[in-house]
Amino acid sequence: MTTTALSLDEIYDIANTALLSAGANEENADAVAQTVTRAERDGSHSHGLFRIPGYVASLKSGKVNGQADPKVDQRTAVVVHCDGDLGYAPIAHQRALETLANAAQAQGIATLSITRTHHFAALWPETETLARQGLVAMTCVSYMPNVAPFGSREKLYGTNPISFAWPRPDYEPLVFDMATAAMAMGEVQIKARDGGSVPPGTGLDAEGKETTDPTEIVKGMLLPFGGYKGSHIAMMIELLAGPLVGETVSFNSKARDSGDGGPPQGGQFILAMNPELLSGGQWKEEGEAFLARLASLEGVRLPAERRYRNRAQSGSRAINSELLEKIRKLI
Amino acid sequence: MTTTALSLDEIYDIANTALLSAGANEENADAVAQTVTRAERDGSHSHGLFRIPGYVASLKSGKVNGQADPKVDQRTAVVVHCDGDLGYAPIAHQRALETLANAAQAQGIATLSITRTHHFAALWPETETLARQGLVAMTCVSYMPNVAPFGSREKLYGTNPISFAWPRPDYEPLVFDMATAAMAMGEVQIKARDGGSVPPGTGLDAEGKETTDPTEIVKGMLLPFGGYKGSHIAMMIELLAGPLVGETVSFNSKARDSGDGGPPQGGQFILAMNPELLSGGQWKEEGEAFLARLASLEGVRLPAERRYRNRAQSGSRAINSELLEKIRKLI
Repeated sequence: MTTTALSLDEIYDIANTALLSAGANEENADAVAQTVTRAERDGSHSHGLFRIPGYVASLKSGKVNGQADPKVDQRTAVVVHCDGDLGYAPIAHQRALETLANAAQAQGIATLSITRTHHFAALWPETETLARQGLVAMTCVSYMPNVAPFGSREKLYGTNPISFAWPRPDYEPLVFDMATAAMAMGEVQIKARDGGSVPPGTGLDAEGKETTDPTEIVKGMLLPFGGYKGSHIAMMIELLAGPLVGETVSFNSKARDSGDGGPPQGGQFILAMNPELLSGGQWKEEGEAFLARLASLEGVRLPAERRYRNRAQSGSRAINSELLEKIRKLI
Repeated sequence: MTTTALSLDEIYDIANTALLSAGANEENADAVAQTVTRAERDGSHSHGLFRIPGYVASLKSGKVNGQADPKVDQRTAVVVHCDGDLGYAPIAHQRALETLANAAQAQGIATLSITRTHHFAALWPETETLARQGLVAMTCVSYMPNVAPFGSREKLYGTNPISFAWPRPDYEPLVFDMATAAMAMGEVQIKARDGGSVPPGTGLDAEGKETTDPTEIVKGMLLPFGGYKGSHIAMMIELLAGPLVGETVSFNSKARDSGDGGPPQGGQFILAMNPELLSGGQWKEEGEAFLARLASLEGVRLPAERRYRNRAQSGSRAINSELLEKIRKLI
């Protein structure tokens, strides 16, 4: 793979220019370009410039509103709602996360329901942002159906990621962000391209039979991680990120999607909790004792460690040259 | 296995009598005996009379307070705390769940932190109780370390169960309640007794090597379900049920435990949400459309279906005769 070295400013500029030329206004383009740049900064190429063609396709098709003007309303002191105005999610986060954080700080727990949004990024930016304000945070989204519930042979769940963050007094927040599919479809596609097999339990072929052949899984469907237990987590996420927030589950998100290659309309569930209030002030020492013990175990790496290490590197990032060429043609 | 047919009243009576004779007062004995009876009613023998010897041991040793008088206080309008007064958890639930439900109904979301409690039962009674009041509910507890974090060879996590419930307008609530260990230690012990092997990923031997031999796992340790992703869920539960509520994580719960065979002191995290307020009133149809589609898939059974089927059976329950004999000797 040929790569081109780009500074973070250059990454931001190419993302921002592509979004502007696809019709987004400055505020919307900036919010998405910042999200894309943070992903490249942290080494998460799959959520970086790689997504720009999809972002652009849905702006050009008119499915996603590049002039989105999300509105925040509080249904109660601790239930915040944000109507995403059919834009991409980052601008909704810019407008609503502060209200959520303030409610959780004051009352101890609060939730943010985001509706009419298009989420096409990682989830850790939301949870990490909240954890940096001393809050315990959790969020999840659903997507389009490509995961078969455990025991079945039919796609119903999205890859349904979940992210959780825990604030640490003297360290970067502990954050995990993971799909509830056994493997990301992109990874399976790469294995199919390069040859080889995937572990049992990764997916099924188009007839719903178990297979370790990635080319068959690409034509078929993924499975949830961890058998029936992971399937329960994926099911919970469908309910939290769909009906609980007033939005659709994956199969209904797909039913109304235009198929333009960008992300479907859907919902996002975000929870924030103030550990000072929930614990009565006793959380820090015990949390740190636990994480110190966990990190001391041979073979264990705390989640997000690699992300923070990548982030700390100054200088340019290596971007796939073919992808860059593709994006430049979109501008 | 020889069994004895007991009515639910007889099950309650033997449980209640055993607890009273071990020193519990009427209110505490009744709360636990009800929990035990509900487990047997629903076919969950592992949380039924099977636990009475453990309950009795910790009352007799004085570790658990049979005169517990849990106190409920609200730290804010939506943060409820219950000091379990070192009793068994059911009496804390009797005192505190209503306050939690009222707060969630009124404000949309609320949490209950239970501290200084001893939880030795299933978690679905708490979540199902809340879902019957129209609330979405989640709860988790940690325990004593017997699960090695993914990648390590050392026990750190408890079996750390999590339960989630979703209210349904015309059906019993959807409820799951599962350990985040790949398999319950009790099941592994039964496999070891009966001969045979367990699936890869169930556990490690005492040296931390992978094995499918249940006798080696009994001497060694369990693994989380679903590899590193399940391990993240188990880690999250340690933080939620421990420091977030102002209690200990599994390894510190064990450090102060007397080893009398009963459950350690620990915490419980309970979350309740009002879907009417979070969704703006749009949750029912979408949730039901999703669950109808899920239930229609060949090979899928909604969680808790078997529990509700068992519950619907009138008449006696078959109780292990040896266990009954053991309990009668305790009285």
